[in-house]
Amino acid sequence: MRRSAPALAALIACSAALAIGPSTRNDPPTTAQVLEMAQPSDWRRPDPENLLYLELPAGRVVIELAPRFAPAHVANIKALAREKFYDGLPVARVQDNFVAQWGDADKVRQTPGALRVLPDETVIAWHKRLPFIELPDPDGYARQTGWMDGFPVGVERRPSGQVWMTHCYGTLGVGRENWPDNGSGAELYVVIGQAPRQLDRNIVVAGRVLRGIELLSSLPRGSGALGFHEKPAERTLIRGARIAADLPESGRTPLEVLRTDTALFTKYVESRRNRRDDWYIAPAGHIDICNVTIPVRDPGAAAK
Amino acid sequence: MRRSAPALAALIACSAALAIGPSTRNDPPTTAQVLEMAQPSDWRRPDPENLLYLELPAGRVVIELAPRFAPAHVANIKALAREKFYDGLPVARVQDNFVAQWGDADKVRQTPGALRVLPDETVIAWHKRLPFIELPDPDGYARQTGWMDGFPVGVERRPSGQVWMTHCYGTLGVGRENWPDNGSGAELYVVIGQAPRQLDRNIVVAGRVLRGIELLSSLPRGSGALGFHEKPAERTLIRGARIAADLPESGRTPLEVLRTDTALFTKYVESRRNRRDDWYIAPAGHIDICNVTIPVRDPGAAAK
Repeated sequence: MRRSAPALAALIACSAALAIGPSTRNDPPTTAQVLEMAQPSDWRRPDPENLLYLELPAGRVVIELAPRFAPAHVANIKALAREKFYDGLPVARVQDNFVAQWGDADKVRQTPGALRVLPDETVIAWHKRLPFIELPDPDGYARQTGWMDGFPVGVERRPSGQVWMTHCYGTLGVGRENWPDNGSGAELYVVIGQAPRQLDRNIVVAGRVLRGIELLSSLPRGSGALGFHEKPAERTLIRGARIAADLPESGRTPLEVLRTDTALFTKYVESRRNRRDDWYIAPAGHIDICNVTIPVRDPGAAAK
Repeated sequence: MRRSAPALAALIACSAALAIGPSTRNDPPTTAQVLEMAQPSDWRRPDPENLLYLELPAGRVVIELAPRFAPAHVANIKALAREKFYDGLPVARVQDNFVAQWGDADKVRQTPGALRVLPDETVIAWHKRLPFIELPDPDGYARQTGWMDGFPVGVERRPSGQVWMTHCYGTLGVGRENWPDNGSGAELYVVIGQAPRQLDRNIVVAGRVLRGIELLSSLPRGSGALGFHEKPAERTLIRGARIAADLPESGRTPLEVLRTDTALFTKYVESRRNRRDDWYIAPAGHIDICNVTIPVRDPGAAAK
């Protein structure tokens, strides 16, 4: 067995779709087994009105915007995309283990949309009562964590009654200067490292990457302060940023996201909390909100 | 103030060395202020016998090995480096938000060192009593977390009496197949994403990256299963892997690491737990073991 199967040789772990381990009938299902059990109704197709396509030279990053958490910011980001504000602007900052940030870092496009003053949307009020799917595992940064509207959130029902989207790998945030500036969306960032949860409740979160984050996370790091590129030639330029609904069907990236409000999702989370794949010796017995990667698939996968 | 200072425009946060915010005399110090207070004795110079230099085409990755946690594995990794085992082998796997892995993925170098059967070093026993610096913040994956010998650890004093190095960004691990294989060091990986704490106690950890991790984390992701590159041309080849002690002084990378067993380090952690820089509105009041980045500096910085 030892090193006899080259294809398996370096598999140290655990891709959701691939780590298929045989298990006995009474064991809880592995992640692969849970996903095999999923019905079409366990998946959702994001509204194309809320999908932002960031077109980089290496390909497309698909971002789901979160209008229920940051309605004014999402509306302004969409307006900026529709006026082609981002086209030709750079990814000006790539800070290792932190963020990739793009937009008008040089303040060359002081359009009305870029200068718009937006309300504080760092948190929303609990009383709005989007259905909350709690992750029962304790969290040090928030009283409770879980999902609302398909996005990972932190919750403090009392005393503040606040809900906020957590900063996890792939989170889209709105760059700002010192508070009370809330940012306009003229500069946006995506988390490309360890979840910087210290940013929670300090800055507006507007969505998260569904596909293509590797095109941002593998960019060369900036050598300047805070990961800014020091020379224009080191920057990657944005070819365009579009709202999916504005493209013909043929120009869109079809994809489905696993719903977070189903019994199947609860099984999925358990399969990540306690890995039952043969590779593991000691299941962790715990999972952090930012370690629950929400599966995304090509809808063609449904047909098999 | 708004958008008037281009150099500040996109600073959404918080580099340890750079986010200098003026604070009043009674506020706890910011990270920058803590580091300014550091004395030479607050820093340590890692033993060159335990520094592995991974030479990539883009530069050098400096890795501190952890012989107190995985003595047999560290010894074998050093022996492999000294027999030039890794030279010319590829970084064969780059899985986004998970690991970059290098070594003999193709099993072309079945040397005695690569085939050596090593003892299980996934955990060490608490009774060995390296001084333990506890991080008081609760952790979901371990009873206690903190630092031992300068490395982040999880601890379970009872019932198991186990101590293990936590999987954080930059952690060096030893690839293996299914247990009871423990890996020989012929394949090594470094964490380049959200801390995969589910790996803790499941695989041998042998050290962590001190400098240059961006050379691994910015590599193009592999498009194959588990992030393996599908074509040889997509791989990055290792120019060499050397132990610092084997190089003349002029060939070494001078650096110092902040000690974790000092009063100053406690202040440093607090400055990360509750950010006092002007940018922040709401300090988190909590920090996760993997969010405590341990500062590394050029010794020249000490002289000022």
